[in-house]
Amino acid sequence: MVSRHISKRLLYYRSALVHLKKMGFEYVYSKTIGEEIGVSPDVVRKDFSNIEIRGKRKVGYKVSDLIRKLDEMFGKTCCFEIIVVGIGNIGRALTKYESYLDDRIKILGGFDINPSRIKSFNEIPIMHINEAESFITQNDIKVAVMTVPEISAQLVCNKLVECGIKGILNFAPVILKVPDDVFVKNISIADEITRVFYHARIN
Amino acid sequence: MVSRHISKRLLYYRSALVHLKKMGFEYVYSKTIGEEIGVSPDVVRKDFSNIEIRGKRKVGYKVSDLIRKLDEMFGKTCCFEIIVVGIGNIGRALTKYESYLDDRIKILGGFDINPSRIKSFNEIPIMHINEAESFITQNDIKVAVMTVPEISAQLVCNKLVECGIKGILNFAPVILKVPDDVFVKNISIADEITRVFYHARIN
Repeated sequence: MVSRHISKRLLYYRSALVHLKKMGFEYVYSKTIGEEIGVSPDVVRKDFSNIEIRGKRKVGYKVSDLIRKLDEMFGKTCCFEIIVVGIGNIGRALTKYESYLDDRIKILGGFDINPSRIKSFNEIPIMHINEAESFITQNDIKVAVMTVPEISAQLVCNKLVECGIKGILNFAPVILKVPDDVFVKNISIADEITRVFYHARIN
Repeated sequence: MVSRHISKRLLYYRSALVHLKKMGFEYVYSKTIGEEIGVSPDVVRKDFSNIEIRGKRKVGYKVSDLIRKLDEMFGKTCCFEIIVVGIGNIGRALTKYESYLDDRIKILGGFDINPSRIKSFNEIPIMHINEAESFITQNDIKVAVMTVPEISAQLVCNKLVECGIKGILNFAPVILKVPDDVFVKNISIADEITRVFYHARIN
């Protein structure tokens, strides 16, 4: 298991490699991959050697091999089944098909506490939050995307963990407390905008 | 200017500190802050000393001082004016008020190439992408959120950079090429879901 920072870079490499493959590259150097995502060739080589991928001298890495190995590592060859909890504006957007969602990611259901929002979709079933437990168990769901308001986030999180959820992508602007065996990734859009202002300021 | 990783942690600290303040804490130890966001007290102390914040022995850090200093650093005391380019599902969600957006972040306008989407909002003006240049110049906009399809992302990005945009929060699943003086932060929701599956797998 690689660290959170490395897994992030590896998925960036994958995006860059898919792009390079479309452009006709069969082999690439660490330098080319690094340039695509803005890291040094040394970092690229170290990241790949960490997961036991090595390039060939004077030829580099075979693009299709790299993509296949990364897909094996991240399980991208199979289907990722998730639920979305909280069908506000962001949750609603996520439940509709858009290019940001990989073909292999499948939203099996959406949950909300507000009955007026329920049944407003036909692509995927939107259910009351009280139905989450049986749905999670029946469908063996392990990962949930949380797009609920800040005030109810920890409560909803506790409930999901009780139901057996092991991974959460959280859009609520709150640091969730979870047991050690549950992985949480926070996306705070406000924080990301703040960081863009900060890093863009001196340029 | 701190690195991208440190700025991310500092904004996590800020969220945790706001939470601790609401709970009634006046002073906190690095240990408490670290526990809130899952890093060691050493990392907390190092990050704070990097930006010249030091705690007092046996007392720790004063919560309100920390928040004020972080706000000064990130400019959170003033208003962040942005535009959203690409009014699909995600762009549409972002232009509506929700708790994920800080009060200080203000979306001045939205842009899209599809006329049928235009005028569908009354909260903020939605304009044709061709009007972006004059709008950016007139309002001195420096930061844009990009929620356009993958295929047009680089083209839209080039146009924004030409108009003087210096920071981009990009939701399109593509690594954008920008000049050195432009800062890009990518959010790939598909990649984040993939990472949650990867890190949750062994638990």
